Amino acid sequence: MKKLYIIKIGGNIIDDTHALEKFLNDFSKIDGLKLLIHGGGKIASELAKKLGVSQAMVNGRRITDGETLKITTMVYAGLINKQIVAALQAKKVNAIGFSGADANLIQSTKRKAVDIDYGFVGDLDISGVNSELLNFFIEKKMVPVFSAITHDGNGQLLNTNADTIASVLAAALSKYYAVQLNYCFEKNGVLENMEDENSVIKTISKSKYKQLLQDRTISKGMIPKLDNAFSAIQNGVQAVVIAHADELINTTKNEHAGTTLIA
Amino acid sequence: MKKLYIIKIGGNIIDDTHALEKFLNDFSKIDGLKLLIHGGGKIASELAKKLGVSQAMVNGRRITDGETLKITTMVYAGLINKQIVAALQAKKVNAIGFSGADANLIQSTKRKAVDIDYGFVGDLDISGVNSELLNFFIEKKMVPVFSAITHDGNGQLLNTNADTIASVLAAALSKYYAVQLNYCFEKNGVLENMEDENSVIKTISKSKYKQLLQDRTISKGMIPKLDNAFSAIQNGVQAVVIAHADELINTTKNEHAGTTLIA
Repeated sequence: MKKLYIIKIGGNIIDDTHALEKFLNDFSKIDGLKLLIHGGGKIASELAKKLGVSQAMVNGRRITDGETLKITTMVYAGLINKQIVAALQAKKVNAIGFSGADANLIQSTKRKAVDIDYGFVGDLDISGVNSELLNFFIEKKMVPVFSAITHDGNGQLLNTNADTIASVLAAALSKYYAVQLNYCFEKNGVLENMEDENSVIKTISKSKYKQLLQDRTISKGMIPKLDNAFSAIQNGVQAVVIAHADELINTTKNEHAGTTLIA
Repeated sequence: MKKLYIIKIGGNIIDDTHALEKFLNDFSKIDGLKLLIHGGGKIASELAKKLGVSQAMVNGRRITDGETLKITTMVYAGLINKQIVAALQAKKVNAIGFSGADANLIQSTKRKAVDIDYGFVGDLDISGVNSELLNFFIEKKMVPVFSAITHDGNGQLLNTNADTIASVLAAALSKYYAVQLNYCFEKNGVLENMEDENSVIKTISKSKYKQLLQDRTISKGMIPKLDNAFSAIQNGVQAVVIAHADELINTTKNEHAGTTLIA
C-alpha cells in the first residue's frame, strides 16, 4: 500500500502568518501523497464581533446559530481555504479546496438537541465519506484541502469539528493507503505536565491512555483529540502523531517527534 | 461532440431567495452535462458596509483593495458558492465548488494600473484555463460551480468578472464539447428599448451588433456582456443566449427565448 499523509492544522497556526507560511512550506516538501484539513482560528470570532453577532458558548463549545454558520462558512470555506490553496499552488502543490458539500465528499448529520442545542453542527462517521471519489482526486495527484464545513445532503451546511474530520477521513482512506495522520499544533506533543514543553509523552497505547485518563494526567482540551486519534487507529489508520507544527518534516522521516499513538 | 451547457447567473438572482431557488431547480433539470458560474450580488457590498470597508468605485467598477478582496473571497468563494453547491446536492446534482485557484483551474493576471489602479482584479484569457483537468471533472459527471475568484499562480487571489469567466471557460471547453453558453439575468434579453421588456432583439449577428453600437441602441451595461459573448463565439462556442433566468429550460429545448447571438 502507498503511504498517504493526512495533516490537520489548528487555528493557532492559521492565526499566525509566519507560522502558517512555514507550515505550508514544510507541507509542500512532504514527499508523496498528502491531504490537509484546516481549522478556523480567531478570524471567524473577530468577524462575528465586528458584525455584532454574539457567540454563545456552552462548556467551551461554540453554539452555531444561523448567522454564525454564515460567518464560519465565509471564513473557513472561503477566505482561509482559498488563501491556503493559492499559497500551495504557488509552491507547485496541486491543491484543491473542499467543503464536505463539494462533490458530496463529507455528509454529516445535524447534532440532535438533547440537553444543549448546538445549532448547525454536524456529527459524522466513516459512512459519510465519499472515499471512492476522494481517492480519485488523490490518484490524479491532486492535494485535497478541507475546511471544517460539511453538509447534510438536504441542502444544509454544517459546522464540523476539524479534528473529527481528520480522523474520519484517515479511517475512510485506510482501505486504499497506509495512512499517517498528523495533528499539528502549537505544543510539542501530549504533555505529562502542561507547564513543561519538555514533558512530552513519546508513546501512548490505548491501555496507557486509559491509565492517563484515570490519573488525570491528560489535560481536558486534549481528550477529544486523543479520542479522535484512537478512533482512527481502531479503524485501520497506521500511525497517528500529535506534534508541534515545526516538526512536520521530522514526523514524515521516521525521526521521533511529538507523541505517537499506538494500538 | 457532446453538448455542454455553461450557465452564468448574475447577482440579481443570487440576491433573491425565491428566484435563486427556482433557478437551481431549473438548472438541476437540464438534461446532460453542465457547468455553473455565479456572480456576487449585494451581499459583499452589504458586508463591506457593515464592516466599515469603503467601496471605491471608478466608472461604475469596484476597486478591489486588500480588505475588499477578503470580503469578496469570503462571500463569493465561501458563502454563496457553498450554499449553491449544498442546494444542488440536495437536488441530486453532483455539484463541486471551485475558485480559479482550486486545482489551478483558472489562472489570471493582475490588471496593470494604467490610468486607474483597479487593485486585486484579474484579467484572463483562454490560456489561463486548465481545460484538461476541468474536462476530467465533467467527464466524471461532476457539475463544476465557479465563483468569480481566480488566482495569479503566485499565491495572489484575484477578483474577476464572472461574465468573462463564463466566456473564457466556454471557449476553452469548446475543443471537447458543443458548448451552449447562457447568460441568465433579470431581463428578457437584449432590449431594443430598455423601458420595454417586450422589445427583445431575437438574434444579433456580429455585423448587426456593430450597427446597434453605432445607433446607441445597446445600453452601456450590456456592452461588456455582448463583447464577452461574441468573443466566445469567435473562439468556437456553438451558441450564446442572453435571456431571463426563468427561461433557462426553454433555451435548452430549442424553444426560442431571449436573445441568441450568432457569428
